[in-house]
Amino acid sequence: MRFNDRLEDVCKHKNSCVCVGLDLDIAKIPSSFLREKQPLYVFAREIINVTSEYAAAYKLNTAFYEATGVEGWRLLSDIVDMIPGDTIRIADAKRADIGNTSKMYAQAFFSELPFDAVTVNPYLGFDGIAPFIEREDKGVFILCLTSNPGAQDFQYLNHDGVLLYEQVALKAREWNRLNNCCLVVGATHEDELRQIRRLVPDIPFLIPGIGAQGGDLELSVRYSFESSTTSSLFNSSRGILYSSEPEDYMQRVAERCKALRDEINRFKNISME
Amino acid sequence: MRFNDRLEDVCKHKNSCVCVGLDLDIAKIPSSFLREKQPLYVFAREIINVTSEYAAAYKLNTAFYEATGVEGWRLLSDIVDMIPGDTIRIADAKRADIGNTSKMYAQAFFSELPFDAVTVNPYLGFDGIAPFIEREDKGVFILCLTSNPGAQDFQYLNHDGVLLYEQVALKAREWNRLNNCCLVVGATHEDELRQIRRLVPDIPFLIPGIGAQGGDLELSVRYSFESSTTSSLFNSSRGILYSSEPEDYMQRVAERCKALRDEINRFKNISME
Repeated sequence: MRFNDRLEDVCKHKNSCVCVGLDLDIAKIPSSFLREKQPLYVFAREIINVTSEYAAAYKLNTAFYEATGVEGWRLLSDIVDMIPGDTIRIADAKRADIGNTSKMYAQAFFSELPFDAVTVNPYLGFDGIAPFIEREDKGVFILCLTSNPGAQDFQYLNHDGVLLYEQVALKAREWNRLNNCCLVVGATHEDELRQIRRLVPDIPFLIPGIGAQGGDLELSVRYSFESSTTSSLFNSSRGILYSSEPEDYMQRVAERCKALRDEINRFKNISME
Repeated sequence: MRFNDRLEDVCKHKNSCVCVGLDLDIAKIPSSFLREKQPLYVFAREIINVTSEYAAAYKLNTAFYEATGVEGWRLLSDIVDMIPGDTIRIADAKRADIGNTSKMYAQAFFSELPFDAVTVNPYLGFDGIAPFIEREDKGVFILCLTSNPGAQDFQYLNHDGVLLYEQVALKAREWNRLNNCCLVVGATHEDELRQIRRLVPDIPFLIPGIGAQGGDLELSVRYSFESSTTSSLFNSSRGILYSSEPEDYMQRVAERCKALRDEINRFKNISME
């Protein structure tokens, strides 16, 4: 099944557009887990257990794993293995290299590891992304407009009235022959998100930046479903995983995940009425 | 010592601008190594042994290591550990994320692993690169104009007469307060390389694309040293590491590395006369 069709199915079946970002941070997990032999593994396992009813996808940002070297890479592998098969497993790797070399990255995330999708950086152009796109069952989330302040440095460059991030969106539409291209669009830019949705009504978005980064959830949801023919995923990492209140920790994680799901569904239904 | 000063020192001391790319490929190494328990490790060790006299730097492209998962990441760690300390160790990782997350990548390559420098992707802008730049003893090679065909897709976008890759070069100059910013400029674009050198005479280049990719060595060397106040590195991977001739394999690797060093020095001296 082509990736974007599967994404659509998963979101419908689970009645959810939530992506849980497994940004594991040993400094932020409850102290009770520090007694475990593998604190981060056990923490992630419990997080997955209590959120899998409400989540359509899980996103593992490779930076959080590479930061601890070989052990971190093993943890990445162990955690992706335990994510239920009825959810989308995204490697937030932001990779890309020249074509020959990107092939090795595609092998790393799609063959050596069982990810369903990967985030990629568009700067190197088509051949840097092609090895990921070749497999129709795998999804390729191309960075379009990122949620950070540095997005201003290059992504808004204007070539004959078309901004760089708009050019990336248009290229994604062109490269979407196997219906497996998606875009990363930060929730911190609601108006631009609306414009991008108009350019590419049929390309799913992965939307980070709600919660800790301050993006507006209601507008992001409304604009991404407005006149759209596809689903989108809304990522929350710190907002779901961490809180300073130790009591009933995992129950509250589940409640936050469920609340986010319900809120997204409510805004989505309003926008689609 | 600030990274760009150290790079200058190493190139002078070793009388070399050669960077050896350790793109390890089990399908390409001589069959004699396949008898070893760790063929790629032993192959890399011998390559480093016979080339270290002639090389100023080694570049490990993370894709080739990640492609084999946990074991590959261990190999990356083992190999960087055995590169002599009088050469520059570059992680060709092409990473970047939002600021908070890029910090984790800086930790991965500069603290967890002992790399001296890393390649980064500029698409996310300043905060995606800042965590790497903060350490003056570490080098940051920012992708500017890449050697692959896809470079045409976005890197030439023209904003009021300034192309995207030129804008990246100008930003690198602005971000070079600690004298540790460098640029990646592919040898397959000689004329553009010359223009970039004129924009930033004091920023070192890492130049891939000679050899297998067809870039012109003489022009790349001449243009990168023309009216420049700094050193540059010229990378060769497949061109040094692999040949189909099994006899005296490592001696010939050494000869190819030495020949490249001498050729670069010859063109460099012509251009600086």
